[in-house]
Order: sequence, then C-alpha cells, then structure tokens
Amino acid sequence: MVDKKLGGAGLRGQVAGETKLCTVGKSGSGLTYYGYDIKELAEKVSFEEVAYLLAHGELPKADDLAAYKGRLAKLRGLPQSLKDVLERIPADAHPMDVMRTGCSFLGNIEPEADFSQADDKIERLLAAFPSMLLYWYHFSHNGKRIETETDADSIGAHFLELLHGKKPSQLHADVMNTSLILYAEHEFNASTFTARVCASTLSDIFSCVTGAIGSLRGPLHGGANEAAMELIEDMKDADDAEQTLMGMLERKEKIMGFGHAVYREFDPRNDIIKAWSEKLAKENGDTRLYDVSVRCEEVMWREKKLFPNADFFHASAYHFMGIPTKLFTPIFVMSRVTGWTAHVKEQRANNRIIRPSADYIGPEPRPVPKLNER
Amino acid sequence: MVDKKLGGAGLRGQVAGETKLCTVGKSGSGLTYYGYDIKELAEKVSFEEVAYLLAHGELPKADDLAAYKGRLAKLRGLPQSLKDVLERIPADAHPMDVMRTGCSFLGNIEPEADFSQADDKIERLLAAFPSMLLYWYHFSHNGKRIETETDADSIGAHFLELLHGKKPSQLHADVMNTSLILYAEHEFNASTFTARVCASTLSDIFSCVTGAIGSLRGPLHGGANEAAMELIEDMKDADDAEQTLMGMLERKEKIMGFGHAVYREFDPRNDIIKAWSEKLAKENGDTRLYDVSVRCEEVMWREKKLFPNADFFHASAYHFMGIPTKLFTPIFVMSRVTGWTAHVKEQRANNRIIRPSADYIGPEPRPVPKLNER
Repeated sequence: MVDKKLGGAGLRGQVAGETKLCTVGKSGSGLTYYGYDIKELAEKVSFEEVAYLLAHGELPKADDLAAYKGRLAKLRGLPQSLKDVLERIPADAHPMDVMRTGCSFLGNIEPEADFSQADDKIERLLAAFPSMLLYWYHFSHNGKRIETETDADSIGAHFLELLHGKKPSQLHADVMNTSLILYAEHEFNASTFTARVCASTLSDIFSCVTGAIGSLRGPLHGGANEAAMELIEDMKDADDAEQTLMGMLERKEKIMGFGHAVYREFDPRNDIIKAWSEKLAKENGDTRLYDVSVRCEEVMWREKKLFPNADFFHASAYHFMGIPTKLFTPIFVMSRVTGWTAHVKEQRANNRIIRPSADYIGPEPRPVPKLNER
Repeated sequence: MVDKKLGGAGLRGQVAGETKLCTVGKSGSGLTYYGYDIKELAEKVSFEEVAYLLAHGELPKADDLAAYKGRLAKLRGLPQSLKDVLERIPADAHPMDVMRTGCSFLGNIEPEADFSQADDKIERLLAAFPSMLLYWYHFSHNGKRIETETDADSIGAHFLELLHGKKPSQLHADVMNTSLILYAEHEFNASTFTARVCASTLSDIFSCVTGAIGSLRGPLHGGANEAAMELIEDMKDADDAEQTLMGMLERKEKIMGFGHAVYREFDPRNDIIKAWSEKLAKENGDTRLYDVSVRCEEVMWREKKLFPNADFFHASAYHFMGIPTKLFTPIFVMSRVTGWTAHVKEQRANNRIIRPSADYIGPEPRPVPKLNER
C-alpha cells in the first residue's frame, strides 16, 4: 500500500467521508442544514425544529414537534449521583471540563446499551446539558442547589431561566433560539470529526460526544466567542476600539473572531447574530459593546480584508443577556450536540474505522543500549 | 479550493501527518518505537523505560530512570473527590466508561494550566490509571475501599497488587511489563488519531486522553482482547476449538483477534505475548486455554491465511493471571496513554488544526416549508 501524500497539513481540503447533513461555503448564503439555508432557518423555525431536522433528516410536522418538545422538557432533571459529581467540581474549573465530565459520567449511569437507543440518548443529552452546566455553576459559585426542571417552552428559554432564576423576556428567548440554530452544525470541523473518528470504532454515543466536547474546548475551535468578549470588553467606545485594534495589528497580535477556515468572503451567520446584537443593544440602552464591535468589523475589513465569523457578535449578544463569559463555549456544546450526534448516526450507518497513516520522520532502526551504556 | 478525493474510506492509506514515534509494518520485525524494535524492547527493558522513551524521545539513563520511577510511585494516590466520583459508578458500568470519566474528572481538579505542565500531567495519568480502575472495581464489586498506594516497583506489579491484594510473582510482574510495552504505541490508530485531532485545537491533555479512551472503547478497536477471551473461554480442548471455529467460518461469523488493518503477514507482538502465555500455562498446570489458542491460530491460518494480532494471546495470558475479562481493555489504556500523550506533544509542537472536508450527498437547496404544510 502506497500512502497518498497530503497537500496541506491538518487534512485541509482532504475529503474524509460523505455527509448528507450540511454544506459549508457552497450554495445560497453559504451554509445549509439538509438543504435548508441557515438564513431561512434562523428566521422561520425554532431550535427544536432544527434539532429534530438534524436527528431525523426532515423538519417535524406539528404533532411530531409537540411530542418532541414534550419529551425534551421531561428530560431536564438530573440524577442525584450526577449532581453529587457536579458538586465536587470547583468553581475555578474550566466549564468545558464540567460539560465533558458530566457527559462522560451520564454515560455510566444511563448507558447506550445498543445503537437502537441512540435517539433517546441524543434527546437526553440535548435536554440535560443546560441543567448540568447551571447546576454546577450555581452550586460552585453561589453554594446553591438549583431545581433543574422548568416549564420553559424552549431549550434557549430553559437555559436563561436556570441562569437568571426567572423567565427570560421574549426577545432574549428569541436570541437564544437563533444562536442555538446558528451553532448547531458545521460539517467536518475538528470537534465533529473527533466524534466521527470515535464513532468509527463503534463506540457509544457518550464517548463520541465526550470526545467532541474535549476538542471544542481548544482555543483554536470553540473558544473564539469568549476570546472576542475579552477583546471588546475593555474598549471604551468606537474610537478606542479603532486605536486598540490598530495597535494589535501593528504588533501582529492574533485577533479572535475574524476569518474562517472554510469561508473566504463572509460568514453567513454573522449578519444574523449581528442584527440581534443590535436589537439587544437598543433594549439595553447602553450600546457601547455593539458600537465597538461594529467598529472592529470595519477596521478588520479595511485593514486585513477579514470578516467577523459567527463568534464575534455572539460575544456582545450574550453579554447583553447577562451571560457570564465563561459560559459562552458551553452554550456552543448545547447547540452543536445536535450536529455531532447526527454525524455519529451517519458514520454508524456507513462505517469504516478511521485509521490514517503517518509519514515517519524519526530515528533509523537502532539497537537498544544497555542501561549503563546510555 | 478543490477537495482531493479519497482512495478508500476511513482515510486508509492517507497520510494525515508526520511522526517520529513509531513505524508500523516497515523495518525489522515490523514495529519500532523511536527506532527501537519492539522485540528487543520487550526482551530488554521495562515498561517504565518505554514510557520515558515515548515521553522524551530517548531511553533514560540509570539516574533518570530511578527518578522517573520514584515520581510515578508517588503519584498513585487518588484525591478524595475522585474517589467519591468512582464510588457513584455502578458495578455494571462499562469499565472503559469508568476510565474515561476518571480521566475527565481529574482534569477538573488537577488541570493542565498550560502546556509546560504536560509532562507532569502525563506522569500523573500513567501513575493514577491503575488506581482509578481498581478503586472503582473493588468498591463497586466488593464494597471495599482499597488503599491505592503500594510500594510496587513497576506499574504492572502495582496493577496486579491492587487487583489481587497481594504482591504478584516475578513471572506475573514480567508478563504485565511486557504486555504494557506491546500496547504502548501504534502510530495513527483511531484512538491516537482522536487524541491528535483534539490536540490540534490546542485543547488540554485531559481532553485528548479522555477522547482517546472513548475511541479505544469501541469494539472495532480496543475490545478485541475481551472478544478473544469470549471466543476461547468455553472451548473444551484443541479439537473443540477446531470444530467451533470451522462452524463459525462456515456461518461467516466475525472472529476477533485475527488480522490487522496495517500488518499483512503477521503481527510482531504476537510471538512475544504467545511465548509468555505458554509459560503461564505451564505454571498454571491447566494448559487448556493456551492449547485452544494455538489450535485457533493454526485453523485461522490454514483456512483464511489470517494471523493472530497482539490481542489474541493476550486473552489467555491475562486470564492465567486471574485478571477479569472486563478489565482487559482498561489495561490497554494504562499502556497506550504513553503513546497517546507522546502524539499530543508531537501535534502541539508542529500544529495545524485538523479539519478535513466532506463530500456532500444530501438534499439540493430547498425552501423551508411552513409548520402546517409539512
């Protein structure tokens, strides 16, 4: 067998498999889920409809949607043993470590016994992730054991209600809904590919999602919305933003939230979340974070022809809704679990174990020296 | 960007990166770690020397080895919160879920704050995995809270002492030592590739290892030694083995422990573990499991030209040492963590995020139908 040499590192531009789920940078606005354009989905449907679409390949009929949402609402509670585990994770832990561990632990006590249970386990994870995160958050930060079951009508509203201890406004529930749709699926990104490699060994779905969370945790992947927040939070106004960015560009510092591995001209998710961020700024009265974000966008385009990706305006949008910065990437998990698990099912349906080769660049064959002759 | 079409599924034969660590199916007996042949390593050195080699690129001098073993011995204890977590995992959980969760949890309370801590965390995981597994095992199965610190001279002996509650014989310690060497490293297999994909996002080392454990859990990857045990355990003698296998071959049933994704003629690890299995059989007196294994090897070669891989004679060898079948794959973790983490360090040292492409085979662009028109 002769190994095929790579064009670029990181498998960039290499086809690693087939998918029905998603196109990135191809038709329409540049992102489709099962053929539906992200702009239309973000305008017209709920995140639960997108989650159902990714799980089943079609948007739900009204009855199916009601039943699906009913099941999800009933799966928000956490078993006592999982709460015990979350209570042992300190406040200064990385929230993505909490998500990874909560997911992994759940796999012990509610395992996927065989692949026929996949859909049930996917619904369980989708429903339980906001509860896991916020049970840990309130216990570790405020010593408070929250009740994780709410009668919120959506996953986004459920998350905000657990976070703030009160029902969110319609505007905030709508923004969360859109945000979860935008982050749901994105083809063979690193975390999704992690899930597929794991699935290719025919491992269980908790292992696949646990691995994906670990990859999303990396600052080159899921951390960009937090990094964007850190960038803008101390900017006093648009002019300060301009000055700060110009200084960073001059010092060749890395500026997070701009550009994309696949998109070349724009990220179709940016306009959508930017519009919501503007609405939230107006509601909020203090529009500083939105104003500085807009100026950052202008400067980066003017100076580097770089556009904001999905993460950049998410920073201000989340902040306007009172979401602590450290919870930004875990929200990504709550959404992307739909894409990851859809890819797991797809991999299982047409599987071959993913086992690439490596170019060897190490030492020539050599004899083992005795301990006293090294 | 034009995507390069794959020759085969599962990235088989595709180069996904460079490595200095290992060659598979190239020179000498067919497996080298940093240029040293697996046969020579298995004969002449300890697992701790191999672990050091994989971590640092060279075999240790006598002083370095003594210091290294001293550090590892001091890292065998488990924090109380981790014990609390392990106590909440039931006896019927999959032991690989226990390993995955223990690793993930440890990442919360002893995080890798930055990459300069990588070597410390690698040593911690290497030292703590046997303790994690057997603390859970004894508590969940026997209600016993074991002391996880021993003065055993090696990781293999430490494992056997925790398992059986007494010091192992020299023969058993030697077999464990060899077994851990054989499983330590194997290039871009699925679990190692999982660790590298995760590392490519610059995530922490606990995420990388947690993900790798999840992939190794899959029956197409790490489960083969357990499957081999299930195959042979009910065979009464060599003739019964012959009859059973011929029946399975006729019914075209999958027979685990034979053949390999990369090796074509033989697995260099087989002769080594087979010789140890024979010694253990003689010590044991009842040689049935060894005899049936030998006949299986003969039949599979005669009928299918398939050879036993590293896993096949591991089954009888582990069984002769009184190791419960369900702990076979976790032993693989205790060993392979050295290879996984060496690959993580290598990926970090020359990184580009691993983000392949997909061939789209889904629906054409389509409008979103209204809820009542679906």
